[in-house]
Amino acid sequence: MRSRYTTLILHRLPATARPSQSLADLHEHGLIGEPPSIVEERIATVATLEEALAGASYAQESIRETLEAKRDIYSRMDTIAAPSTVLASSTSTIPASAFTEGLQHRERCLVVHPVNPPYLVPLVEICPAPWTTQEVLERTHFLQTRVGQVPILVRREIQGFILNRLQAALVNEALALFADGYASAEDIDKTVRDGLGLRWSFMGPFETCELNAPGGIVDYARRYGEVIYQQVQTQQPRKWEHPVVGLLEAERRQILPAEALAARQAWRDRRLMALLRHKKSAVRS
Amino acid sequence: MRSRYTTLILHRLPATARPSQSLADLHEHGLIGEPPSIVEERIATVATLEEALAGASYAQESIRETLEAKRDIYSRMDTIAAPSTVLASSTSTIPASAFTEGLQHRERCLVVHPVNPPYLVPLVEICPAPWTTQEVLERTHFLQTRVGQVPILVRREIQGFILNRLQAALVNEALALFADGYASAEDIDKTVRDGLGLRWSFMGPFETCELNAPGGIVDYARRYGEVIYQQVQTQQPRKWEHPVVGLLEAERRQILPAEALAARQAWRDRRLMALLRHKKSAVRS
Repeated sequence: MRSRYTTLILHRLPATARPSQSLADLHEHGLIGEPPSIVEERIATVATLEEALAGASYAQESIRETLEAKRDIYSRMDTIAAPSTVLASSTSTIPASAFTEGLQHRERCLVVHPVNPPYLVPLVEICPAPWTTQEVLERTHFLQTRVGQVPILVRREIQGFILNRLQAALVNEALALFADGYASAEDIDKTVRDGLGLRWSFMGPFETCELNAPGGIVDYARRYGEVIYQQVQTQQPRKWEHPVVGLLEAERRQILPAEALAARQAWRDRRLMALLRHKKSAVRS
Repeated sequence: MRSRYTTLILHRLPATARPSQSLADLHEHGLIGEPPSIVEERIATVATLEEALAGASYAQESIRETLEAKRDIYSRMDTIAAPSTVLASSTSTIPASAFTEGLQHRERCLVVHPVNPPYLVPLVEICPAPWTTQEVLERTHFLQTRVGQVPILVRREIQGFILNRLQAALVNEALALFADGYASAEDIDKTVRDGLGLRWSFMGPFETCELNAPGGIVDYARRYGEVIYQQVQTQQPRKWEHPVVGLLEAERRQILPAEALAARQAWRDRRLMALLRHKKSAVRS
């Protein structure tokens, strides 16, 4: 049974990092129960697609993000893998239908989009192509839940799926407010990390709204729906280009020098681990 | 000196709650150092505006959210209060210029917008009218920081200030994705609480973006700017009305019965307190 997890575990660790370090970090923060060496023994590195897919029940593809590259590898995987092997793509931008339409066993293909850094953030977006079978969806949902991820279902294909569309909406408005001089980048970041982001780390946006009105979501819509609608009407798509990006870069570099970026990423991962441990204990209490 | 804090402390406790319960909760979660009874002694309830403003250096007005009500009370407060008293409004929707323009001492008026629940969420948005003096801004910023809040500066008046505009952008897209059947309300909530919201609870959107690209924010703009722009172009303002709100209500009531809303609000507040304590310890470690 254990060999079936091999491909997934490879996916969940950053390709550039030593698995042993990430596993040690996870163990230290109480996020995996087994000793790291035991987990590491289940990870195999292989040199060919044939070896990777031999006997696999599920394969998570995470190659570079171009349509041509995806088409090429899915065409090869579809020929090599047993028809019962689920072929899942980590793509964050390309719908599965764009690179699986002509395949003989396209019904076992879908997108399973993880979030950066994927070995720490539980969410995965499961997005089927129109021809993905219900059985494949259910097997994928079950597997992701079993390994401790939180899967959601994107019912129809849409650019950006759910997470990146929600992020794009907020980040676009953040850029607009910065570009138009309403607030500094740091003050916009504070607005989220000391305000909006607190509730969103344990409740979603709908539950957050609902608990802000005595009568729940209908009451919320009546009290605030028109104001939200008016505000959104004044929001416009903004280009991520100069001079705004240069001004943003200048402010960010005052806060964090370029040479400190890698160390800050490691800090982010430690904070994520501490937050995940906190959430586990908060749910129990 | 202590009496100067009286009005602010009144503001930070929900008007409908017994201060003693909230203070006991804060103390239990390690969020206030003094015994609750000592803090409670500093809270005075008074019957008239004259008593409330006597000797006050700062007044936080939190009456109902209509322009007429704001105009009326500011006209009265401006006459009663000493010219050096800062008059700050909790309004989340009305710019200070709309209800202070004609006042004799309008230069000491501004918006100081707290976030629900205000005695737990640190962020406050300081938004001056065009005539608010720099000295009033600085005194307000200093006071808010002193009492443990995290103030940000909204440099010019804008509907919704920063926090509600960011929230509106995301919540509007959440409503659109739900309305168009791309995902359930619960799966959209999971996307935030087990995905997007984790990093946002200790980093802002700009820092989150920056750490997702090896070369920082300029690298991020080059890699993802065009994709974000394309996604936002397909986003539209949505009305918070039936039938969508009815469908949302139906799904929420399956997850949380109407009679459980108040208990869930209390749970939210306990979770916020536990998260704030976690953040304090994470910063120290």
